[in-house]
Amino acid sequence: MSTRFNSRQADQLRPVSLEPGYAKHAEGSCLVRFGDTHVLCTASVEDRVPPWLRGQGKGWVTAEYGMLPRATHTRGDREAAKGKQSGRTQEIQRLIGRALRAAIDLKVLGERVIKIDCDVIQADGGTRTASVTGAYVALYQAVEWLMNKGDLKENPIRTEVAAISCGLVKGEALLDLDYAEDSGADADANFVLTGAGAIVEIQGTAEEAPFTAEQFANLFALAQNGITRLVTYQRQALGLY
Amino acid sequence: MSTRFNSRQADQLRPVSLEPGYAKHAEGSCLVRFGDTHVLCTASVEDRVPPWLRGQGKGWVTAEYGMLPRATHTRGDREAAKGKQSGRTQEIQRLIGRALRAAIDLKVLGERVIKIDCDVIQADGGTRTASVTGAYVALYQAVEWLMNKGDLKENPIRTEVAAISCGLVKGEALLDLDYAEDSGADADANFVLTGAGAIVEIQGTAEEAPFTAEQFANLFALAQNGITRLVTYQRQALGLY
Amino acid sequence: MSTRFNSRQADQLRPVSLEPGYAKHAEGSCLVRFGDTHVLCTASVEDRVPPWLRGQGKGWVTAEYGMLPRATHTRGDREAAKGKQSGRTQEIQRLIGRALRAAIDLKVLGERVIKIDCDVIQADGGTRTASVTGAYVALYQAVEWLMNKGDLKENPIRTEVAAISCGLVKGEALLDLDYAEDSGADADANFVLTGAGAIVEIQGTAEEAPFTAEQFANLFALAQNGITRLVTYQRQALGLY
Amino acid sequence: MSTRFNSRQADQLRPVSLEPGYAKHAEGSCLVRFGDTHVLCTASVEDRVPPWLRGQGKGWVTAEYGMLPRATHTRGDREAAKGKQSGRTQEIQRLIGRALRAAIDLKVLGERVIKIDCDVIQADGGTRTASVTGAYVALYQAVEWLMNKGDLKENPIRTEVAAISCGLVKGEALLDLDYAEDSGADADANFVLTGAGAIVEIQGTAEEAPFTAEQFANLFALAQNGITRLVTYQRQALGLY
Amino acid sequence: MSTRFNSRQADQLRPVSLEPGYAKHAEGSCLVRFGDTHVLCTASVEDRVPPWLRGQGKGWVTAEYGMLPRATHTRGDREAAKGKQSGRTQEIQRLIGRALRAAIDLKVLGERVIKIDCDVIQADGGTRTASVTGAYVALYQAVEWLMNKGDLKENPIRTEVAAISCGLVKGEALLDLDYAEDSGADADANFVLTGAGAIVEIQGTAEEAPFTAEQFANLFALAQNGITRLVTYQRQALGLY
Amino acid sequence: MSTRFNSRQADQLRPVSLEPGYAKHAEGSCLVRFGDTHVLCTASVEDRVPPWLRGQGKGWVTAEYGMLPRATHTRGDREAAKGKQSGRTQEIQRLIGRALRAAIDLKVLGERVIKIDCDVIQADGGTRTASVTGAYVALYQAVEWLMNKGDLKENPIRTEVAAISCGLVKGEALLDLDYAEDSGADADANFVLTGAGAIVEIQGTAEEAPFTAEQFANLFALAQNGITRLVTYQRQALGLY
Repeated sequence: MSTRFNSRQADQLRPVSLEPGYAKHAEGSCLVRFGDTHVLCTASVEDRVPPWLRGQGKGWVTAEYGMLPRATHTRGDREAAKGKQSGRTQEIQRLIGRALRAAIDLKVLGERVIKIDCDVIQADGGTRTASVTGAYVALYQAVEWLMNKGDLKENPIRTEVAAISCGLVKGEALLDLDYAEDSGADADANFVLTGAGAIVEIQGTAEEAPFTAEQFANLFALAQNGITRLVTYQRQALGLY
Repeated sequence: MSTRFNSRQADQLRPVSLEPGYAKHAEGSCLVRFGDTHVLCTASVEDRVPPWLRGQGKGWVTAEYGMLPRATHTRGDREAAKGKQSGRTQEIQRLIGRALRAAIDLKVLGERVIKIDCDVIQADGGTRTASVTGAYVALYQAVEWLMNKGDLKENPIRTEVAAISCGLVKGEALLDLDYAEDSGADADANFVLTGAGAIVEIQGTAEEAPFTAEQFANLFALAQNGITRLVTYQRQALGLY
Repeated sequence: MSTRFNSRQADQLRPVSLEPGYAKHAEGSCLVRFGDTHVLCTASVEDRVPPWLRGQGKGWVTAEYGMLPRATHTRGDREAAKGKQSGRTQEIQRLIGRALRAAIDLKVLGERVIKIDCDVIQADGGTRTASVTGAYVALYQAVEWLMNKGDLKENPIRTEVAAISCGLVKGEALLDLDYAEDSGADADANFVLTGAGAIVEIQGTAEEAPFTAEQFANLFALAQNGITRLVTYQRQALGLY
Repeated sequence: MSTRFNSRQADQLRPVSLEPGYAKHAEGSCLVRFGDTHVLCTASVEDRVPPWLRGQGKGWVTAEYGMLPRATHTRGDREAAKGKQSGRTQEIQRLIGRALRAAIDLKVLGERVIKIDCDVIQADGGTRTASVTGAYVALYQAVEWLMNKGDLKENPIRTEVAAISCGLVKGEALLDLDYAEDSGADADANFVLTGAGAIVEIQGTAEEAPFTAEQFANLFALAQNGITRLVTYQRQALGLY
Repeated sequence: MSTRFNSRQADQLRPVSLEPGYAKHAEGSCLVRFGDTHVLCTASVEDRVPPWLRGQGKGWVTAEYGMLPRATHTRGDREAAKGKQSGRTQEIQRLIGRALRAAIDLKVLGERVIKIDCDVIQADGGTRTASVTGAYVALYQAVEWLMNKGDLKENPIRTEVAAISCGLVKGEALLDLDYAEDSGADADANFVLTGAGAIVEIQGTAEEAPFTAEQFANLFALAQNGITRLVTYQRQALGLY
Repeated sequence: MSTRFNSRQADQLRPVSLEPGYAKHAEGSCLVRFGDTHVLCTASVEDRVPPWLRGQGKGWVTAEYGMLPRATHTRGDREAAKGKQSGRTQEIQRLIGRALRAAIDLKVLGERVIKIDCDVIQADGGTRTASVTGAYVALYQAVEWLMNKGDLKENPIRTEVAAISCGLVKGEALLDLDYAEDSGADADANFVLTGAGAIVEIQGTAEEAPFTAEQFANLFALAQNGITRLVTYQRQALGLY
């Protein structure tokens, strides 16, 4: 059995911290930390919808993702300077957007857009799962802000969502991979689940060798367990206990 | 139980055709049809690797994806005219590349690149899964071309790969969704599996409502069955029976 | 006298095929083949005009052109990935648009736009002339579609247009150059003519050495003859005989 | 018969001026004026060729074209601010480059590049023909500069080139259209000819109505006459008489 | 004491010429020359404001800056071809815009935009200060044009503005640096002042070594003197004496 | 006399904090806070120089600047998504680079590049001055890292640099403007000075009305005083007392 950093168990999360209200100006925000991975999530409310949605009585939730150039071990190019977002960036921000739209009833939200920004301040693996988990908290705060203002009568949030990665490292299924583990994994998977354990999104990829249905089931079981804990942390952070 | 177009059964593929050697100039090619979804896949061999891979004795397989503007019901903007590829396009071409790299031993391939182009001539759902399935045939032909020239002594292909979509439509698990089914699905998933049924990539997304682990297992079972048939078609098209 | 591929005569077209209705979704379409040059032309009708044309009671016809990366002997970069269309691409699509606007009365068309997409599936010289010739067929079908729907009372098409290339190869004037002939030509010219033989557009370029007015007249004569046959094929393909 | 501005005859050029050496820093330059159309042409010599030409003992001549935003009646967008060159700009700069390459023996030029910049200071029709005519003078000066330095032993220039537009305006063939005439023309054509009257490039376009071969011949005759005079002006400007 | 080109004194401007009305089409224009630095400034009037200014009863003045590729000793890349404006270009055009907005009362101007284009035809140091100085003349002409048309009742111009550079070269404070002086300066500063000597903008930069407050005061004194003369030239050019 | 937020005096800085080593991966870093303005500065060392500097035995220091989309009161567009950096961003990052190059002897640094990234986490006025002040600390740390590794024998840093803004608000000269003060200022100026009080860069701009030399002198005096305190804080943060 492999030994993880800080004697972490195979089914153990890294230290998680969720700090709501971190950003002074945003309607909702959360600084989320999964170990050394730190992501600032903000939620911005706009009182109009894009043209393709006008007049349907529905809102929208969308996300953008970015990484500070030196969030990583070696400096990465600044996407604004290169003039385009990488395929990886676009893939992640699309995932975050889909995950949050699964948490909310867009009809109840009404004709407004909530834009989520997830910016990675420091990266050590799992930036997309930390982003989803923190973004839910920022989204929840923005909805509270709308309700406190009286702009919303009914809370449009239908379920919590959180996300975690799992991977096969030297044959062993591990929860919440850090960067070193992720780099050496034979396969990894990201799970976005609801508070009730239902599936919102699954992305599993064999990096080195195809894996079996049984191995996948083990990863899934680990993830369900981890998500249960993350959802508890989200509730605590939002003062819902 | 819903009735599918042309009385198709829930576990039935659309008519599949794989036409290798469709493109006159490419080292490998395949026109793949899943019903009304038609994709031209070509494989181009280049005898040098990108800078980040030089001197490692390894090759690379990469993919690009595109759609003709009027492949779809209503005309889409031409990405070359807009000046950038959409997030969806980048997501799909990254998936195709990963899928094919799982099929091949890059060390045996040696210091060369095989570029796969998947261009959708007509779209009716499942363009990414048709692309992976046809691209494997084009890749196989390009490898044969290298072996016939004597540039490769050993065949680097380790396994077949094929891909298929499944989805939950009105509660029922269906194989190989067409566009109309996909638009109305509660959830859908794309599976890339090897000829032996091992998992290369899984992407599952709840469009309308989160789904259960059991529902996901049903989709997986459908996919395994479909992939077995697709791999048989690939072998037939390549004259391997 | 040079010997052409397949014993073709100097004034002989390559085998031409025009396959209308090739694309399932488009209002008009045609797969055109000039020998090994294959272009898919589609016509898309939009019921509004760009801002600069609003309120003038006139329509517009415009064209876009593209080439699949491996349509050619060696793979070309994908323009969507590079983020811009080449000067050559823009020059060709502007030519196609002008040619088709010469065929139609924009006032009779009314306030709508017909967008023509010409995508080269396989290239062996003459892609722009094949594009114009096939695009006319797609345009005609789209107009028929509008008339069948009752959206147009009067047919706005005023004349057929077709296009062909000619060139001086080792001093000899040849019709409809393939790629090998075009690469070795001293000069070449593209002619867009009406069914009645009037000039819509002429582009003549000395590649290797300036040419005389007499040589140009010879190319023109060849082109007139070739266009007459192309227009006949267009009529046949559209069932107008 | 139409009356032209300033009582100009149908076969008369606007006042032409060629001012060589206008730019202090360039190896060759010419401010060319065709009436109110003013273009600054510069030639810049670079002592290396692009990668695709290395080791072939040949040089290259290429051109770029631009227009100051307020060269025209109403201000046009600045292409640098928009982030791309229009199709029209690219078409024109490709034409200028081809025209000048027809004037020079690239083998004798040797492994160096001459870059021609044509920037329109003021526009009143015929900017592309003025550009070609002035660019030849700038090119000639740059070649002289190379010969004076001793970097070239043999003069690589093989022929003069100049260009002029003609058009059909209310049925009459006119030489050297200004902007107002060009806007109202039924058809127009640009001719690039050598000093000896041979054809380098012909571009003829029906703007309003297809035109006949006889009409085209009339335009050609006008152009030949005009080019003879332009070449004389080029020689005078270069002190070759 | 260093000897300047043409025995120029430390506090002496290069020969200055301001040629109003240089551009035929623009509402206002000025070709400004500071020695071998030549800039064409045009002013274009648009009768509507950008969306963010609508309904406020105010106008706007904005500027764009460009340099012909061979304005400089060695050819620079064309920004339109590169697809973006450099940081330097943007910095300069923002400076010109701010300088001119300080000269005009935007409320009196009313809901219209005056766009200033400053295009460097030839560069020998001080292009931004020549641009500001010439742009004021073009702006003034455009305002006169509006008043002559009766579109403005009151002249919105509140003050003249002009600009000049100064620098420390080998310890000596010099006015109006040319390119050679600027390249060797220890520090330089650009001053935009009003006709009355008030400060609109100051930009001082230590190129080689930080400089003292006293040195800065010397540069400022030189600039005040130079600006007084420039404003006189502006008045002469506009016929205001 | 105006009353500042929190009873701040005219010549008083906001609470300043400098937190070196904030970023886990970078060779140098500092989280700088000027009141509610928070900027993360990192320094990344690269052991090669750009092509234009090769073989000169000199290094380079350069900077990039960015702002998280919701650092501000209302969300700004993400520059990476828009595909280009604004003029303001480029102006600021050029300023930061110049300021730091004034602090260091590039010959002693040797053939390596230090890239400074300044990313605004939260904005409340003065982001460019906070960036310069924090970037110096990050740069210093990176130099220490090089010396501790033995890659540098001599410390290349020649002087401290720090920056502060001043402005005229309702006629009063104020130090270190926050966003509300900056928005209402008649004029403002940014000063980059050395620890010894010498001038590295001055940028002064009249927003509403031109200002006098005396007013400018008052701003300068305030700045000198503020910089003295900032340099003390830098030394404390770096443990140099």
